[in-house]
Amino acid sequence: MFRHDYSPSMAKPSTRHKSSLSAAWLFLTGAFVALLLVWSFSAFSSSSQRFDTLSESKSATDRKQGRCDMGAVNLQYDPPNETFYDDPRLSYTVGNKVENWNQKRKEWFKHHPSFAAGAAERIVMVTGSQPSPCKNPIGDHLLLRTFKNKVDYCRIHGYDIFYNSVLLHPKMNSYWAKIPIVKAGMLAHPEAEWIWWVDSDALVTDMEFKLPLHRYKNHNVVVHGWPGMIYENKSWTSLNAGVFLIRNCQWSMDFLETWANMGPISPDFSKWGPIQRSIFKDKLFPESDDQTALIYLLYKEKEKYYDNIYLEGEFDFESYWVGVLPTYDNMTEQYIEIDRRSPTLRRRHAEKVSEFYGAEREKYLKAAGNGRGSWRRPFITHFTGCQPCSGNHNPMYSGEACWKGMVKALNFADNQVLRKYGFVHPNLRDSSLVSPVPFDYPVPNEDGPWG
Amino acid sequence: MFRHDYSPSMAKPSTRHKSSLSAAWLFLTGAFVALLLVWSFSAFSSSSQRFDTLSESKSATDRKQGRCDMGAVNLQYDPPNETFYDDPRLSYTVGNKVENWNQKRKEWFKHHPSFAAGAAERIVMVTGSQPSPCKNPIGDHLLLRTFKNKVDYCRIHGYDIFYNSVLLHPKMNSYWAKIPIVKAGMLAHPEAEWIWWVDSDALVTDMEFKLPLHRYKNHNVVVHGWPGMIYENKSWTSLNAGVFLIRNCQWSMDFLETWANMGPISPDFSKWGPIQRSIFKDKLFPESDDQTALIYLLYKEKEKYYDNIYLEGEFDFESYWVGVLPTYDNMTEQYIEIDRRSPTLRRRHAEKVSEFYGAEREKYLKAAGNGRGSWRRPFITHFTGCQPCSGNHNPMYSGEACWKGMVKALNFADNQVLRKYGFVHPNLRDSSLVSPVPFDYPVPNEDGPWG
Repeated sequence: MFRHDYSPSMAKPSTRHKSSLSAAWLFLTGAFVALLLVWSFSAFSSSSQRFDTLSESKSATDRKQGRCDMGAVNLQYDPPNETFYDDPRLSYTVGNKVENWNQKRKEWFKHHPSFAAGAAERIVMVTGSQPSPCKNPIGDHLLLRTFKNKVDYCRIHGYDIFYNSVLLHPKMNSYWAKIPIVKAGMLAHPEAEWIWWVDSDALVTDMEFKLPLHRYKNHNVVVHGWPGMIYENKSWTSLNAGVFLIRNCQWSMDFLETWANMGPISPDFSKWGPIQRSIFKDKLFPESDDQTALIYLLYKEKEKYYDNIYLEGEFDFESYWVGVLPTYDNMTEQYIEIDRRSPTLRRRHAEKVSEFYGAEREKYLKAAGNGRGSWRRPFITHFTGCQPCSGNHNPMYSGEACWKGMVKALNFADNQVLRKYGFVHPNLRDSSLVSPVPFDYPVPNEDGPWG
Repeated sequence: MFRHDYSPSMAKPSTRHKSSLSAAWLFLTGAFVALLLVWSFSAFSSSSQRFDTLSESKSATDRKQGRCDMGAVNLQYDPPNETFYDDPRLSYTVGNKVENWNQKRKEWFKHHPSFAAGAAERIVMVTGSQPSPCKNPIGDHLLLRTFKNKVDYCRIHGYDIFYNSVLLHPKMNSYWAKIPIVKAGMLAHPEAEWIWWVDSDALVTDMEFKLPLHRYKNHNVVVHGWPGMIYENKSWTSLNAGVFLIRNCQWSMDFLETWANMGPISPDFSKWGPIQRSIFKDKLFPESDDQTALIYLLYKEKEKYYDNIYLEGEFDFESYWVGVLPTYDNMTEQYIEIDRRSPTLRRRHAEKVSEFYGAEREKYLKAAGNGRGSWRRPFITHFTGCQPCSGNHNPMYSGEACWKGMVKALNFADNQVLRKYGFVHPNLRDSSLVSPVPFDYPVPNEDGPWG
C-alpha cells in the first residue's frame, strides 16, 4: 500500500486522567512494598550462590485464590465460574457477531483479578505472514528479521506478541487476512485493552518510543492518517491501514464485522471496488481493499466513525520508507550527539530498564520536531510498496532498493537493541559485522565503533 | 548433532523448599489484594464502554521510588546508584572474565526492588541464526516458523525471548556461537535467574509443559544427558548441548570461559579435537566441538562439574526427531481421549491462563510414562542432524524427510496454540488449512475437525 507522506498534522489535545487515591491505599501499598523489600533481601542473603525459590505452598495457596505470585499476573488460575468462553454461541470466526462484549470482558476480569491491574495499558501486538515459503528468495529471511525486530520491541516494553501464519478465513486473504486474526486475538486475550496490528513489512525503528496511549483514551481505533486527505482530497492514501491499534471492546467487535463486510466475505464484494473507486479516484486496486474500505467508512458515516477513530498525524505511527531511509545516517549522528551531552544516556544498563533511558532521551528530543525535516527516529518504518514475501513491488523503485532498504532499517533498529548486549553494527549495510561498544561511549571528540 | 535416544533415566530426588510466612505478611497481602479488587471494580464501573487508564501521577510517584505499577516489574526505573554496569572493566565479550558476579547481581537487585519478586523463576530464552539468508531455499521459512514456535511458548509461560542474528565473536562461529551470546544475555538480563539456550532447529512440541525448576535448585547447568553414556560408554552423544539451561551466577560465568577455551578462541584449539577424539571415539567432527568439550569437562573433572551440571534424563528436555515424529499421530489421539474424559480440558479459555490447563492435564498424564513407549508429547523435538539453514543433513535420511518432518512438528505444536484462538490444523502435513474448533470439542463419540 502507498500512503501520502508528511501530511499536515492534526492536533488533538493530550488529556490526562487522574484518579483519586485514598491515604489508606497509599499506606497499604507502601506497607506491601516495604514488606516485599524485607522479604526479597532476606531471600537473597540466605544464599550467596543463588536465590531461593519461592515457597511452593505459599504460591499454591495464592493461586487457588486467584491472587498473583508476588505481584505478577497469575497464569495458573482459571476458576470454574462461567464466562463468555462457556457460551456455545461464541464464535472466533468473522461473520458471527460477538455481542455484549464489554460486559463479558468485565465479568472475565472479575474472575481473574490478577489481570485487572495494568489492564488499561496492556497491548498484544499481532502480525503474521503466509503459511508457505515466500516466492522471493530473500523473503523469508526478511520476514524472520522483521519478526525478530518486533519481538525485540515487545520484550523491551513488556508487550505480548502473536505471529499468525495461517489464513483464519479462507476467503479473507491478502490484506483482508488481518481482520479475522484481530478478532480471534481479541477473544483469546480478554486481558489486553489493545490489539496492535503491525504488517510484516513494517519495522520498529525507534525502540525507545512508547505509544502515547493517554491520547487515545476516548478512541477505539488509532491509525496513521490525515482528515483533510479523507474529506477534501478524497485520497485512498489518506491513512495507512497496515498498522493500527484497536481497543478490545464491543464497538471494535461491531466495527470489525462492518469492515469485513466490504471484503471477500461479503456477497457484495464485487460491488464495493467500483463504489470505492468512484469516490477515491487514486485508488490502486480495482477490487475493494481494506484501506479504502476503512476510509470509505470514515467518509460516508463520519458521525459514526470519526469520533471513534483517532487519526494520528503527530508522529510517525508508521512512515513511508522512501522518505525516511535517507535520513537514518544523520539521525544516528544526532543521537550520538545527544549521548555525548548526557552521561546518563551513556550509562550501560539492564535491557529491562530501557524505558527509563527512553524517557531520559525525550528531554533532548524536544528540539527534533516531527515529520518532514525532523531528525527524530521514525517510530515505525513501513516498507509500503515493497512486498518482501512475494517479491512484487511498486515499479517506482527496484526490488533491490526495497530489500537493501529493509536490511539497513533492520540494522538501524538492531543497533538500539544490540547495544544493551554490548555490541553494535558499525555499518548499517553489513548485517554480519559487529564491534563491542566501548565503555562510556561516545566520549566527546573520540571515535568509536561507528567511526 | 546426534544424540543417543531413550537412555536409562537418572533419578534425582525432587526437593522442595518451603519458606515460612508470617501471619502479618498474609494479612497484608490479603489486604492488598482486597483493595486491589475494590479499586479495579470501581475503575471498571466508572465507564461501561472502556476501562479507565491508571493515574499518571500515581505511577510517576511509584516509579521514582522504584516500586512497580500495581505489582508488575518496573521498566522505567534505573536509579543513579553505581552497579556493575558502571565498572569500565566489565566486558560483554568472551575471553574477559567477569568476577564477583553473584555480589554484583545482588547489588543490582537491591537497586531494582521490583524485579526481586519472582526472580528465581525468571527465564530468558536465547536462540538465533546466521545474519545472512540461508543457502537452503526453505531454510529461512523454517527458521521463521521455529522462532514463532518459541515465541508462542514464551508468551504462554511469561518468559522473555531474545533472538540473536549476529556473531558476537568473529572466531566463535558455528556451534560455538552460542557461548558469547549466552554470556552477553546473562549481563544484559541480571533480572533473570536462568538463560535457556535453544538451538534454532529445536521446537517446543509440548506447549503446556513447564520446566521443573525446583529439581535444578542445586545445579547451575541443565542439559539432556545420561551419566552412564559419559563415564562408561564414553560417547559424544551422552548429552546434547543444543538445549541447555544455565543459571545466571558466577559459577556459570567461569564455566562459560572454560568451555569457550576449548573453542576457536583458544590458541590450543587445534589440539583439542584430537584429545576429544582419543576419549570419545564416536565423535563426528575432527575439530573440537562444543558438545564433546562439555562432555570432556564432565569426564575429566567430574568432581568440579558433575555436581553442578544436572543431566536431565527423566523427560524429553530435547528429543531426537527421528524417534518421536512417528508417534505424533498416536499422541494426538491419546490427548483427544483425555479431552473426552475431562470437561475442564474441553473448556475454552484465555491464552494467558493456559498453565492452569497444563496442570490439569498432568493428572491424566501420569499413566503416559516417559521416554520410549510413552505417549506423552515430547517437550522439545530437536531436528538434530538436519541443518535447516545450510540444507546439509545426516546422510542417514533425506533433506525432504527433515523439512517435511519439521513442518509436521511445527503444525503439531501450532495446534496447541491455535486452539486458544479458535482454530486447528486438521492435517499436520498441511500448514495452510485450518478449521474452527467446535464448542466443547471433542464430545465423546463425535467427530470433529481432526476426525
